[in-house]
Amino acid sequence: MTPEDIFSVRPIGIIHSPFKEKEGMPIQPGSDQGQRGQVVLDREFVPGLQDLEGFSHLILVYYFHQAKSPQLLVKPFLDDVKHGLFATRAPSRPNPIGISVVRLLGIHKNILEIENLDILDGTPLLDIKPYVPDFDRPGEVRIGWLEESREDIPGKLSDDSFS
Amino acid sequence: MTPEDIFSVRPIGIIHSPFKEKEGMPIQPGSDQGQRGQVVLDREFVPGLQDLEGFSHLILVYYFHQAKSPQLLVKPFLDDVKHGLFATRAPSRPNPIGISVVRLLGIHKNILEIENLDILDGTPLLDIKPYVPDFDRPGEVRIGWLEESREDIPGKLSDDSFS
Repeated sequence: MTPEDIFSVRPIGIIHSPFKEKEGMPIQPGSDQGQRGQVVLDREFVPGLQDLEGFSHLILVYYFHQAKSPQLLVKPFLDDVKHGLFATRAPSRPNPIGISVVRLLGIHKNILEIENLDILDGTPLLDIKPYVPDFDRPGEVRIGWLEESREDIPGKLSDDSFS
Repeated sequence: MTPEDIFSVRPIGIIHSPFKEKEGMPIQPGSDQGQRGQVVLDREFVPGLQDLEGFSHLILVYYFHQAKSPQLLVKPFLDDVKHGLFATRAPSRPNPIGISVVRLLGIHKNILEIENLDILDGTPLLDIKPYVPDFDRPGEVRIGWLEESREDIPGKLSDDSFS
């Protein structure tokens, strides 16, 4: 690792949600109860939102600002044995970058109204991408250790064991 | 913006692909021709791969190391008018972070064999996440300006107009 291998990223906005602390959050957007929130984009980036309202879903890329130091084996919510970190969606990762697919309800100037949130209030936003099934939705999928716990996902809430 | 709002990220590995330059690359994994490649993970992170082989697809998070300075309005491959940057998947973004859903073929020590690549050879890897339909696959989707060009996506190759 040489110094030039370190990249800097900076927030382009802030994500606001009803989740003021990690406990009680839905663990991923698919499991949410229709929770709404807002993306407040820094005003300098507003021209980049042009034509985004045609898309029903966005991929938000953000920084897990409350993540702890990463551990390479973690015990997720959905199981009671440890798994490799990269086989989980735990926030504490070598690069604590999160991605969530959310529904876009509307855009007003620099404010994006969104639904299907699993993101902590105040989370720094790094990027917004349009969700495009041709790119983002593969065909037949296997989900390994999660298969057994899949029926537990809907409505599953976070505790503090996985941050 | 204060200095503490800047976050550092660092590569945890390198993505190898047949694409030595941006011209001729498939523009997104969904449009590929089954191209294969490898993720070479730094050896220190190998324990984090445990149980990952049960998943058929991964989300790779990486740094667009050859991205140019971002412009907030861009003319993508798939259209001939400009769109807001955040309504496109252009690599040159305020934070040039890319995400791709790829098929996992196998893991041997720190080497992941993958398929469905749209990533430039030598791209710095930032994260590996398991692809989980319950989290990552929304229901009814609209894709805005891309709707008209959707039939053009399969097999579409990159040129230099969009980097």
